[in-house]
Amino acid sequence: MIRVGICGYGNLGRGVESELMKHSDMELVAVFTRRQPASSLEIKADVPVVHVDSAVEWKDKIDVMILCGGSANDLPVQGVEFAKMFNTVDSFDTHAKIPEYLSKVNEAATNGGHISIVSVGWDPGMFSLMRLYMGAILPEGTTYTFWGKGVSQGHSDAIRRVEGVADAIQYTVPIEEAVDTIRKGNSPALSTREKHKRICYVAAKDGADTVRIASEIKSMPNYFDEYDTEVNFISKEELKANHSKLMHGGNVIRMSNTGEDNRHVTEFSIKLDSNPEFTASILIAYTRAAYRLGKNGETGARTVYDIPPVLLCQEERNEIIKKLL
Amino acid sequence: MIRVGICGYGNLGRGVESELMKHSDMELVAVFTRRQPASSLEIKADVPVVHVDSAVEWKDKIDVMILCGGSANDLPVQGVEFAKMFNTVDSFDTHAKIPEYLSKVNEAATNGGHISIVSVGWDPGMFSLMRLYMGAILPEGTTYTFWGKGVSQGHSDAIRRVEGVADAIQYTVPIEEAVDTIRKGNSPALSTREKHKRICYVAAKDGADTVRIASEIKSMPNYFDEYDTEVNFISKEELKANHSKLMHGGNVIRMSNTGEDNRHVTEFSIKLDSNPEFTASILIAYTRAAYRLGKNGETGARTVYDIPPVLLCQEERNEIIKKLL
Repeated sequence: MIRVGICGYGNLGRGVESELMKHSDMELVAVFTRRQPASSLEIKADVPVVHVDSAVEWKDKIDVMILCGGSANDLPVQGVEFAKMFNTVDSFDTHAKIPEYLSKVNEAATNGGHISIVSVGWDPGMFSLMRLYMGAILPEGTTYTFWGKGVSQGHSDAIRRVEGVADAIQYTVPIEEAVDTIRKGNSPALSTREKHKRICYVAAKDGADTVRIASEIKSMPNYFDEYDTEVNFISKEELKANHSKLMHGGNVIRMSNTGEDNRHVTEFSIKLDSNPEFTASILIAYTRAAYRLGKNGETGARTVYDIPPVLLCQEERNEIIKKLL
Repeated sequence: MIRVGICGYGNLGRGVESELMKHSDMELVAVFTRRQPASSLEIKADVPVVHVDSAVEWKDKIDVMILCGGSANDLPVQGVEFAKMFNTVDSFDTHAKIPEYLSKVNEAATNGGHISIVSVGWDPGMFSLMRLYMGAILPEGTTYTFWGKGVSQGHSDAIRRVEGVADAIQYTVPIEEAVDTIRKGNSPALSTREKHKRICYVAAKDGADTVRIASEIKSMPNYFDEYDTEVNFISKEELKANHSKLMHGGNVIRMSNTGEDNRHVTEFSIKLDSNPEFTASILIAYTRAAYRLGKNGETGARTVYDIPPVLLCQEERNEIIKKLL
């Protein structure tokens, strides 16, 4: 049995807790939290809740720690600190900062004699794998990534910070015409606006100026100004009733050429009812890989690009080859 | 430069020859053939054509030999013989016989001190990878593989052997309703007939009994009897004009559940103008991996499941992580 710890108990941590049960070679050993006192955190599993400051005491009781904190504030610290004490897996997803993060975790993990697999999820993660496979196989071509339809937490939070907004949710929606054009074997140059649009559902506070709110959202730099943004005002009740699922999706498409003029379209697409549970499932599969690499004496930080796929499976290599190859 | 040899110059071998040029870290060194005399084989590239019996003389001049022979007769012999002399990559695709083939090639490669990557292509190959990734991540669910619309060489050949048939082509066509049902998040139990149909274009010889031909095709065991088969008679000219592209395609779809009742649909799909050139492109990417593993002193036989994705790329790991992760 692979003894697993969860650090951080938000949507992702709860997803890991629920999905771990589906893997009979793993057991949850403890959940770690920054909450004071730790005992104030209620979890579903019948395992201890431990304060992160006491994590070191669990060094020999946990084979792999799954880090479920956020990329903005939690992981830059925890990813490095925990790699000194444990084999770790995380979903650090600030694309631009991955090289720096990887390098810091690598140093900590190497010194600590542990394995860390960073930036595991679907993007970065599965989508990154698809971009690599498609590009390595078909060097002449263009790869496109589309996200959605799905809830963007970052954009939803940004709307919630606008004055007069009680609550809000934002869906990132790919422009279907763009996706279809590529699927037909074309490789258009697409602007940001031509790839995705943003649809917002906003519950305004009583008496708030909805015209101003809509205008502030639409012109928000980085988040909305480069997109066609639709703002819909609905009641708090409607927001809760119809928009509380953390659905998501997306696709990676490569349009490429071989020979004289042969076109090939390769596509990987996902449609998810629960973004956190899907991401949790990926983290769990890579937890198995981290455990195996660690047992093999390997140390340092890895990405999904470094992991032989066979290490993700519970079954033996021979069985997998027979059943799936 | 990775020095590459091609063994076998059918559709696949010609595909490798044409696509190798797109990889600036590889060069074609020689083409090997069973033809007597070898010089009677005309190829496009300006490299020697060598008889397979003289291959051993090229032992130190070739880093990786790409085996482009067929799985029925060529590879069971060549795969083993060449693994003693060279690092090899092949597309052995008789699914049921892969474990036995892998084991024989493994022995030969290990004894010869070489690396062989077997059963590289799209199925087995890329599709196998997708089945593994999807299944390892989402253990609760069902994976479906659909092939087509595309030309099946084996089925086309089977029709050509029917008395009175001058020429023929067979398309394997997935049943769209089945694919759509799964895409919507269902996991139906599907019979062979419910997954694919077969569409044949046949040019009959003058005076041949087309009713008998159609009936013989439709009732052919293993090939057609379990499918709804459509037989269309057309002229030789029309067959040549409209049905000579070796197009293919297909998809791997997994419908799975997490949590209480969250559904996830993951799909990998391909649409290919040229099946041999696409397969050749995959072989070439794995040629790079074979070369690198060999340089690293590894020996024995591998499958796509054993290869860290990063080894497929021409670019350095740091660059790939920065650009694609």
